Amino acid sequence: MQLHPNHSTVHRTGSREDLAVPFTRVALTNGETFDRYATAGPGSDPEVGLPALRSAWVAERGDTEEYDGREAQLLDNGKAAVRRGEAREQWRGHRARPRRSQPGRNVTQMHYARRGVVTPEMEHAAIREGMDVELVRSEVAAGRAIIPVNVNHPEAEPMIIGKRFLVKVNANIGNSAVTSSIAEEVDKMTWAVTWGADTVMDLSTGDDIHSTREWIVRNSPVPIGTVPIYQALEKVDGDASRMTWEIYRDTVIEQCEQGVDYMTVHAGVLLRYVPLTAQRITGIVSRGGAIMAGWCLAHHQENFLYTHFDELCEIFARYDVSFTLGDGLRPGCTADANDEAQLSELRTLAELTQRAWEHDVQVMVEGPGHVPLNLVEENVVLQQDWCHGAPFYTLGPLATDIAPGYDHITSAIGAATIAMHGTAMLCYVTPKEHLGLPNRDDVKTGVITYKLSAHAADIAKGHPGARDWDDALSKARFEFRWHDQFALSLDPHTAESFHDETLPAEASKTAHFCSMCGPKFCSMRISQDVRDYVAAGLEEKSSQFLELGSSIYVEEPA
Amino acid sequence: MQLHPNHSTVHRTGSREDLAVPFTRVALTNGETFDRYATAGPGSDPEVGLPALRSAWVAERGDTEEYDGREAQLLDNGKAAVRRGEAREQWRGHRARPRRSQPGRNVTQMHYARRGVVTPEMEHAAIREGMDVELVRSEVAAGRAIIPVNVNHPEAEPMIIGKRFLVKVNANIGNSAVTSSIAEEVDKMTWAVTWGADTVMDLSTGDDIHSTREWIVRNSPVPIGTVPIYQALEKVDGDASRMTWEIYRDTVIEQCEQGVDYMTVHAGVLLRYVPLTAQRITGIVSRGGAIMAGWCLAHHQENFLYTHFDELCEIFARYDVSFTLGDGLRPGCTADANDEAQLSELRTLAELTQRAWEHDVQVMVEGPGHVPLNLVEENVVLQQDWCHGAPFYTLGPLATDIAPGYDHITSAIGAATIAMHGTAMLCYVTPKEHLGLPNRDDVKTGVITYKLSAHAADIAKGHPGARDWDDALSKARFEFRWHDQFALSLDPHTAESFHDETLPAEASKTAHFCSMCGPKFCSMRISQDVRDYVAAGLEEKSSQFLELGSSIYVEEPA
Repeated sequence: MQLHPNHSTVHRTGSREDLAVPFTRVALTNGETFDRYATAGPGSDPEVGLPALRSAWVAERGDTEEYDGREAQLLDNGKAAVRRGEAREQWRGHRARPRRSQPGRNVTQMHYARRGVVTPEMEHAAIREGMDVELVRSEVAAGRAIIPVNVNHPEAEPMIIGKRFLVKVNANIGNSAVTSSIAEEVDKMTWAVTWGADTVMDLSTGDDIHSTREWIVRNSPVPIGTVPIYQALEKVDGDASRMTWEIYRDTVIEQCEQGVDYMTVHAGVLLRYVPLTAQRITGIVSRGGAIMAGWCLAHHQENFLYTHFDELCEIFARYDVSFTLGDGLRPGCTADANDEAQLSELRTLAELTQRAWEHDVQVMVEGPGHVPLNLVEENVVLQQDWCHGAPFYTLGPLATDIAPGYDHITSAIGAATIAMHGTAMLCYVTPKEHLGLPNRDDVKTGVITYKLSAHAADIAKGHPGARDWDDALSKARFEFRWHDQFALSLDPHTAESFHDETLPAEASKTAHFCSMCGPKFCSMRISQDVRDYVAAGLEEKSSQFLELGSSIYVEEPA
Repeated sequence: MQLHPNHSTVHRTGSREDLAVPFTRVALTNGETFDRYATAGPGSDPEVGLPALRSAWVAERGDTEEYDGREAQLLDNGKAAVRRGEAREQWRGHRARPRRSQPGRNVTQMHYARRGVVTPEMEHAAIREGMDVELVRSEVAAGRAIIPVNVNHPEAEPMIIGKRFLVKVNANIGNSAVTSSIAEEVDKMTWAVTWGADTVMDLSTGDDIHSTREWIVRNSPVPIGTVPIYQALEKVDGDASRMTWEIYRDTVIEQCEQGVDYMTVHAGVLLRYVPLTAQRITGIVSRGGAIMAGWCLAHHQENFLYTHFDELCEIFARYDVSFTLGDGLRPGCTADANDEAQLSELRTLAELTQRAWEHDVQVMVEGPGHVPLNLVEENVVLQQDWCHGAPFYTLGPLATDIAPGYDHITSAIGAATIAMHGTAMLCYVTPKEHLGLPNRDDVKTGVITYKLSAHAADIAKGHPGARDWDDALSKARFEFRWHDQFALSLDPHTAESFHDETLPAEASKTAHFCSMCGPKFCSMRISQDVRDYVAAGLEEKSSQFLELGSSIYVEEPA
């Protein structure tokens, strides 16, 4: 979907014909063009899904095999499906047989990168970023960046997450026990990607979890993340103490076969850390963290995700699923930030990062949450140091707790700051955070708020070319090219409709003034006159300016 | 106006009976209370105005005199009034005779502070802040804080602006040649103050400027600021080259007599700095800066505000009007930030700060605008260093230029950051910035966005007691006291309505779950169980937790 009539899609091709990276081209009224990074993909029919862009790349490497896959169970779609005896809304589009590595093979991008192999996925990511492919390969090899691409999600357009690259934004969607339908969630995913979400996490906890995820993955041009413990918990009827490694493992394989690209695993919530949260104002706020803490205490055993971590790595290596090591003990309010519970878990996540890398499995590490601005930088510095530069992926953080309903903003402040200091991906927060589930409008607001935060960080980091976009828009502003301002805006619709509220006439969009100062006087206009004056040489002094000036003020209100 | 049924106004009294400082008391459902800083004042009838709270304090000092004041002119209300032969919407409430210092006397708070006098105004400000009055006096004496209180605005409730105190927020309102009425502007002022604006600037440039301002000042419990050059320009029909010091001076006196508390003066736009803007992407974007640049070039003379600056100081000292030294050469896009034009002007503002202080006149210094995040801190550091700690008052700054329609957010990021580093007051930016004039909703969004940014900075600075508000709300959140969360929110209405979109039933507001996880599993709930478990002693291990747990999961969806 194009956001503006002056937008079109162009492709930059790589070293092979089937490697064409889409960009959004903005045609400007002065004849120039501006190309923007595009996440939106080719667009899909929800019941058919997207073309399998990447299946040739995966197949031709010759290190994977098709297989029958795990047998579907009614419980995969929750208790309601079991009661009904069938799942609602089964996936109706094409379903390829699942694929995994041949026995003993490792098919992760990290594995290839470490062996010096440049994959089409790496090249695709490099072209999107406008960066050298060797930088992409070496950063992936070092673990400082990941390319999340499950072999079973060939619809995804490869992208890279790491601090040397553009800051990325994730949008959370997903139904809950309380509300929403499959179609709504697929629509939210598409909508989030339309506005620029770089990845989407499906956090569904209600009915039809399996089918919902199938619909989402088949339609998603961006990597899909999940938190498998959510579905596993549904399978034990919401009773954390009944959870087992076997149920969890089976759920992970179910999701690997569907094509989930990265999974949050709360393996750092160790039994001995749980009591450290007791004196907090808000205890444990991560749902996954609370589930694992509940399990640890109920059984008085060590977290089974920690004890089975190497086995998980072996599974992930067969599909190229990336870890995001969940911060189950993240602070839930500014008062609890950077405390012993949080930092203890981070040390364990650092240990797990190393263990995953021993399997050549790609890793991100999750971060807070709620952090006062003065403590934000410390979060990135410690994470980057302890985790040897593994990409940091943070939720906000919120810089204050007093503004429910505005937490997209309280968190955008923390997000831009933490990204400037080296966070690679930001998980969006919508205005509904802490209050309810985001609707379509909230998803859009959340994505745009985070895109602007990520971009502010890109500029602050001096990312090559990042400021070009700002400069193009500022030039259009200075030259009163209103249509170009709208077309270049992160949200052209809102920009144009806000302008039209005050000055709806088409003439106002070409007029050399705006509603702030009105037609008689305009500072932008006088600046142009100053420029002309200087260009004409200061020696000729005031007479010429008076002459120029006489043409400024004759216009009358429209 | 109270924002929530559980809010009420309480007063903390000072050393005299007529010194009672209002706070908003939030009554919580657990029997506790939380007192919030309140800017809203007692509320007014727009046609009558507010009581003259402070007139006894001014009168009893015995250093002022009433006088007839400047003769009103039709042109004070613009060309349209001249054409009609009368002003529309004359002020109908009580109008005291103007007051000024007796000849040779100085009536500024800085003058008193430097002589060791503690005024009721200082005590009022100290009680509001919960700070020692001696800190207030000494910071005002040193020029590091100001109490903007014109002797002709006795309706204002004294407050203090300085980096040792709570970060303040200004809201801009005002009509333009294109749109709006007096009643709308008064309503916007009241609305802005209701949501927490600490000061309001009337930037009107359209018709009825004088009358609009009179209505606003008479109804405002917060300090009112203006940019006198805007009205002066109207008096010369929008032709900057026809401006004279005499017309400007007369306009300043007109506004001093009405009770304007602080005025933006673009005295730092020197002739030799103007050409430095020629190579910028967006030239000069400050309206006042452009007017003065236009004047300087047209006459090839030095800025008359600079050459007459001491005379201005003498006028301000007679009414206790504070300067905000305008940054007429501030950058209009991130590309132009921290350039030679901007920094040259700042050096001149530093010189002017010293000159004003020689007259015991209070001063703030204005700052940008548009600044990439990595250059934000430098702005405060240089300003504080060069201007000897005079309060910094910045517009945003916007951290990126790509999101018109969302510039309250792009600027909130910069604002929270610049305030954390020592900016004393933030001028809000609304979603309409660069696109149109803010309506009532935009004013509310702008104020709330900036209140949360200012508060995030207060927390980051470790301001005494600032985090208490966050902690109170977080505790209410953890304990599922939904009504208390709403009542404690910066915007109770929005918080409650967002919650109700997903879970409208009254029962949901006392339920121990929310729409994010639903009733079967809730991380907040499990955290409480962990806490109970730890309190019970870790030795008893898992059996007790299983017991506790059994009570968690039996609830069914509401």
